[in-house]
Amino acid sequence: MDYFYGPGRNHLFVPGPVNIPESVLRAMNRNNEDYRSPAVPAMTKTLLEDVKKIFKTTSGTPFLIPTTGTGAWESALTNTLSPGDRTVSFLIGQFSLLWIDQQKRLGFNVDVVESDWGQGANLDILASKLAEDTAHTIKAVCIVHNETATGVTNNLAKVRKILDDYRHPALFLVDGVSSICALDFRMDEWGVDVALTGSQKALSLPTGMGIVCASPKALEASETAKSVRVFFDWKDYLKFYKLGTYWPYTPSIQLLYGLREALDLLFEEGLDNVIARHARLGNATRLAVEAWGLKNCTQKEEWFSDTVTAVLVPPYIDSAEIVRRGWKRYNLSLGLGLNKVAGKVFRIGHLGNLNELQLLGCLAGVEMILKDVGYPVKLGSGVAAACAYLQNSTPLIASRI
Amino acid sequence: MDYFYGPGRNHLFVPGPVNIPESVLRAMNRNNEDYRSPAVPAMTKTLLEDVKKIFKTTSGTPFLIPTTGTGAWESALTNTLSPGDRTVSFLIGQFSLLWIDQQKRLGFNVDVVESDWGQGANLDILASKLAEDTAHTIKAVCIVHNETATGVTNNLAKVRKILDDYRHPALFLVDGVSSICALDFRMDEWGVDVALTGSQKALSLPTGMGIVCASPKALEASETAKSVRVFFDWKDYLKFYKLGTYWPYTPSIQLLYGLREALDLLFEEGLDNVIARHARLGNATRLAVEAWGLKNCTQKEEWFSDTVTAVLVPPYIDSAEIVRRGWKRYNLSLGLGLNKVAGKVFRIGHLGNLNELQLLGCLAGVEMILKDVGYPVKLGSGVAAACAYLQNSTPLIASRI
Amino acid sequence: MDYFYGPGRNHLFVPGPVNIPESVLRAMNRNNEDYRSPAVPAMTKTLLEDVKKIFKTTSGTPFLIPTTGTGAWESALTNTLSPGDRTVSFLIGQFSLLWIDQQKRLGFNVDVVESDWGQGANLDILASKLAEDTAHTIKAVCIVHNETATGVTNNLAKVRKILDDYRHPALFLVDGVSSICALDFRMDEWGVDVALTGSQKALSLPTGMGIVCASPKALEASETAKSVRVFFDWKDYLKFYKLGTYWPYTPSIQLLYGLREALDLLFEEGLDNVIARHARLGNATRLAVEAWGLKNCTQKEEWFSDTVTAVLVPPYIDSAEIVRRGWKRYNLSLGLGLNKVAGKVFRIGHLGNLNELQLLGCLAGVEMILKDVGYPVKLGSGVAAACAYLQNSTPLIASRI
Amino acid sequence: MDYFYGPGRNHLFVPGPVNIPESVLRAMNRNNEDYRSPAVPAMTKTLLEDVKKIFKTTSGTPFLIPTTGTGAWESALTNTLSPGDRTVSFLIGQFSLLWIDQQKRLGFNVDVVESDWGQGANLDILASKLAEDTAHTIKAVCIVHNETATGVTNNLAKVRKILDDYRHPALFLVDGVSSICALDFRMDEWGVDVALTGSQKALSLPTGMGIVCASPKALEASETAKSVRVFFDWKDYLKFYKLGTYWPYTPSIQLLYGLREALDLLFEEGLDNVIARHARLGNATRLAVEAWGLKNCTQKEEWFSDTVTAVLVPPYIDSAEIVRRGWKRYNLSLGLGLNKVAGKVFRIGHLGNLNELQLLGCLAGVEMILKDVGYPVKLGSGVAAACAYLQNSTPLIASRI
Repeated sequence: MDYFYGPGRNHLFVPGPVNIPESVLRAMNRNNEDYRSPAVPAMTKTLLEDVKKIFKTTSGTPFLIPTTGTGAWESALTNTLSPGDRTVSFLIGQFSLLWIDQQKRLGFNVDVVESDWGQGANLDILASKLAEDTAHTIKAVCIVHNETATGVTNNLAKVRKILDDYRHPALFLVDGVSSICALDFRMDEWGVDVALTGSQKALSLPTGMGIVCASPKALEASETAKSVRVFFDWKDYLKFYKLGTYWPYTPSIQLLYGLREALDLLFEEGLDNVIARHARLGNATRLAVEAWGLKNCTQKEEWFSDTVTAVLVPPYIDSAEIVRRGWKRYNLSLGLGLNKVAGKVFRIGHLGNLNELQLLGCLAGVEMILKDVGYPVKLGSGVAAACAYLQNSTPLIASRI
Repeated sequence: MDYFYGPGRNHLFVPGPVNIPESVLRAMNRNNEDYRSPAVPAMTKTLLEDVKKIFKTTSGTPFLIPTTGTGAWESALTNTLSPGDRTVSFLIGQFSLLWIDQQKRLGFNVDVVESDWGQGANLDILASKLAEDTAHTIKAVCIVHNETATGVTNNLAKVRKILDDYRHPALFLVDGVSSICALDFRMDEWGVDVALTGSQKALSLPTGMGIVCASPKALEASETAKSVRVFFDWKDYLKFYKLGTYWPYTPSIQLLYGLREALDLLFEEGLDNVIARHARLGNATRLAVEAWGLKNCTQKEEWFSDTVTAVLVPPYIDSAEIVRRGWKRYNLSLGLGLNKVAGKVFRIGHLGNLNELQLLGCLAGVEMILKDVGYPVKLGSGVAAACAYLQNSTPLIASRI
Repeated sequence: MDYFYGPGRNHLFVPGPVNIPESVLRAMNRNNEDYRSPAVPAMTKTLLEDVKKIFKTTSGTPFLIPTTGTGAWESALTNTLSPGDRTVSFLIGQFSLLWIDQQKRLGFNVDVVESDWGQGANLDILASKLAEDTAHTIKAVCIVHNETATGVTNNLAKVRKILDDYRHPALFLVDGVSSICALDFRMDEWGVDVALTGSQKALSLPTGMGIVCASPKALEASETAKSVRVFFDWKDYLKFYKLGTYWPYTPSIQLLYGLREALDLLFEEGLDNVIARHARLGNATRLAVEAWGLKNCTQKEEWFSDTVTAVLVPPYIDSAEIVRRGWKRYNLSLGLGLNKVAGKVFRIGHLGNLNELQLLGCLAGVEMILKDVGYPVKLGSGVAAACAYLQNSTPLIASRI
Repeated sequence: MDYFYGPGRNHLFVPGPVNIPESVLRAMNRNNEDYRSPAVPAMTKTLLEDVKKIFKTTSGTPFLIPTTGTGAWESALTNTLSPGDRTVSFLIGQFSLLWIDQQKRLGFNVDVVESDWGQGANLDILASKLAEDTAHTIKAVCIVHNETATGVTNNLAKVRKILDDYRHPALFLVDGVSSICALDFRMDEWGVDVALTGSQKALSLPTGMGIVCASPKALEASETAKSVRVFFDWKDYLKFYKLGTYWPYTPSIQLLYGLREALDLLFEEGLDNVIARHARLGNATRLAVEAWGLKNCTQKEEWFSDTVTAVLVPPYIDSAEIVRRGWKRYNLSLGLGLNKVAGKVFRIGHLGNLNELQLLGCLAGVEMILKDVGYPVKLGSGVAAACAYLQNSTPLIASRI
């Protein structure tokens, strides 16, 4: 018995977990192995070296933690901060909300900068807070690069600039869960101190690996940070890195092989081409939304996300009904609206190992559903708009030229 | 190294081999086993019983032969006919041509009834031949149910009626390669004597199993048929059926498990629902073709195929270029025009384990390619026509209501 | 490139991660799915219900946490205890040592009861501590059911009896990492308050799921426990259990399916038969060790472990060399001696989905290696002793009778 | 439901189908692809080039036919011979018997040279027949390299020498089903005209690919051979080889990828090392049989087979009972005695991707079964004999040094 069966393939357009490439499934289809055998450190060494490339860092230290994004957050915070430390955190949607909630529960003094859901982080307020903070009570600026609930991408380069403008020593902690490997992300150039993502997002793996990367400054902070931690403690990892055995506890052999293949696919396509592909699919989606006469939940173009588009529906429609119909009739998985935007938006995830025709199938499905639920969409309109753009912008597949 | 890699999923729309459901891939992902162990006959018994259902026969005897469709043809012919026997065979496209070629090379006296490619079998000529053949020199009528090269479906009920009208004892041999499990096929009701298909077609398995089903009359014929055969000899199978060990030589354990799962999926969806799904996808495709202003290679509606649509392109376009571009840019595999229709048609296979949004992604891709090659298509037009129909005709997924 | 390739199958005899059955690999060989779709809660509900059976509990509440055994420990401790709380903990080998280290780092006041490595927990000292503790300062008794480093199984029924004898309300926290699903474990009968295991041990899954089960008393304690926690907080799970969506963050769809299949296999074989199989393989291993003239690291029969046997080597042999040779020549993975017993013992893990002939292949390999490293073993002696026992005790495979 | 389930791994020691390496299973775990896409010819080209190496030929032309060994036989015969042609064929066991039966049924005039089952081909008789045949009425000498039913390996170099001694132009057709990739085989050096094997034997793939290799002389013969054939006709393959598309009908994409990986594994280990490994496992098995006090069905050492050992049991034991018990109690698959040696021998297949400890587990199992059925074996004796040999002869795994 399969809990999911429907004829044909599932059309998975939630913003994570995303589609796993067949070659990654293959790589993971293997028996367990002894993680203390010489093979595992040999393999881990290449993974740690290569994973730095997805963060665009040469000085960072990565950790491959058997956990989810929530655990990766906790790793970032508890290793760098002490209870009572002041953080500035931006509340712009459900995932930044959850991270802030975690920060509070972990005992930090969170200075929340709230925006309307659909707007990006208010960096002017960050600037004024930093300006005032001559005593450097702010220990960390915490920001979600891409808010998955609203499809808003924050400007990290600008955050760095503001920190630099005020010569403020606060740590710069970034949730890159729905951005890294899909959006332009530059850990070293932007002076990010901790960046993190989860395996089930743009890396296109199963859930189960939190990937955290720490700058030298973050590592230094971890030596004195007083937050209680054991499972998430970087110290244990670093001890085994030094020993050359790498693992303080048992890793998933399958996810290591999956990560190896996922990285190989990214490098084969070229990280910049991957990012360009996400931009292309993001543009195509937004053109379709516009053609349907619907609004993007994201209020300004500067915040548009190339990994997820949250679409506002008219007040007479319940967006959850759109998601339900996709699942029940078309084997299509769309993202629900969460919390403040529940019922008001549905989300199209367009990240990970995905291509143009997959997206167009999804857009055609959305059109039928919109009509189903009583929205006067012109069938074919969104697909036409997306096609007009994609026909001119889609490159040949490199290996097939 | 993978010879096929491109980002995202491959869009496989050739009329075979078709997409394999994930659960079938899983079922086949296993080590070899001893085929003389008690487990293999136990399993084979259920397979032979259940495979009869896809032929809609209770009196037929099925053979699961480790071969392709070409081998299945040879099995059907050599077990029922003797060198020099006269057959009536209909030439309406590349696959009927190849079968006729085989019949000739196997030493039969083939009476070829040719039609234009794009037309169905000329059954009036069959009637006149049977009328004349009072001596019953015609030993078999050989017909392809669905000509995969042109997307033409022949009317098998009518063939039976003509045979009955003339009380002609000729065997009725049917190539159901691209029809069985997808189109309405009724072995017992239509008095088909041998029917056959290949695993990689509507059954949605890998290539490698020719599935042949023989009526009692065909079995009787096999006792006296003088065509030389060993590998394809039903006698060896029947001997082992009697012994209860079933296999004259080694079967593929993986394909047996794959077949088990493929049948389970068919029965779970319901064979009639599967056929209705194919009709739905066939209709949607034809509506798109019409909206594009292109012609179906199939000249009359009565012959329209619900498993493959061959689309005629204007003379200034090389249809092979359309196929090439699909492969190179969109990870889309379309069928080439073959032989007489090479360069003139491209084919959209819509058979097997497939759903609406997959097809719509393909249709959107075809639109972009048509524009690419200079055909003045209105982008979105085909998708819109298909959506308008599918939105009203697609049922809920049974397990998700 | 594969980091592990050698001809033939790997012989994996470390005490975890253990061999994954082929059907479990198959079950996990699937694309991601939307974890907010109705299918995931439907599936999770059956898993939570069924997983209780491996703990032999009806009143417990299980948590399937995306983490390792180390994380499962942290979940057990932080949800039930507050910083400064006194625990009694038994140090009898490397894994109890690591758990004690975690307890200390999490801020508890750990009262360590140490035994020689090779002995079980000193329960007389427990009794005397409880006797003295009329003020009930001891908040928890923490014990490893089966110390994987030395192959020592502690007597949990006796722990419960002592707690009852003194009517002491301390929580009873049990690490069942290398015992649950392999050794007799009775959560309800023994009044265990938190029990835990990891997916890669006797459940025979990949690493990545910490399975924790809490008694009603433990759940009650969690309401007031002041240890800082977010990722590991049961409260979040319980909230989503109530909502019927079950997951506070993204689970691994693959591990859920793997767990479903692993449980089905356990129930098909029968949990008691599984435990009997482990006893059989444990006995066979110990008989071989005896026949080789070597000593079991475990000093008394009452502590013998049916999941792992730690074998003492003579002082002139480095046990690590035995492990190295197994890996390099015979594709055999044995367990190293850890910490205090490094170089002195090697370990044979005999847990999980394993059978008699696999074990005998391993024992034959060990004999060759022993000879290689200069130990005067009589080749065949251990295998003969094991065979003599197994020939009389191995039942027929139920499905093949 | 699985028809095969038992705890732990299956111990597959039939002489085919054999164990599939995990990496081959992975390589085959993939969706179908368009076999007319440019990727398939690109891949096929490398396969055809590399597959020649397993035949040790540079001048041969290989065919990868979707069939079994029986079909491969038919391909070899019908492409090179005409009805009525005289063949000399050696009957030494069940598989040579079946091939001879096929030769007769295909209409050849078979000159059978029979030996006792357990003896090799009587080459003296071949010599005398060739000596007498000055008119060259013998068109082909057909010989099974390794008779799988009795574990007898024929001396092919000697066959060639005899043919040369008499300057006889007969074609030299070799069934290498249970030899190629496992025993020393030299197509060019020995002047073999057609050699063939099946995917499920030493190549360690699933059943479904017959691999046939033809010398230039055989290809020339195929131009005039009058045997009726279509599916098996080399002409069709050669036509598509010339076109560069390679396939006259649909190949199994999965088996192509499986073959690619299987060849890569063979070349990584080194074909000579693979052959040496088979010799080592063959020797070990024979030493165990001797230690048990049992006789090898093969009557002289010169014929001993390194891929399968047929063991004679005392008259008071039914060898089929041994096989049954292996299956029912130990998840061990041994080969039955076939036809003349039914009940008298059981067979241990030791070919394909297999290693020392796997074999030792099997041998230990056989010992327990022998004791079970009343044979007075000394438990451990066979394993001890095999270990004494293997401990001195097993090399380190190359990739792990």
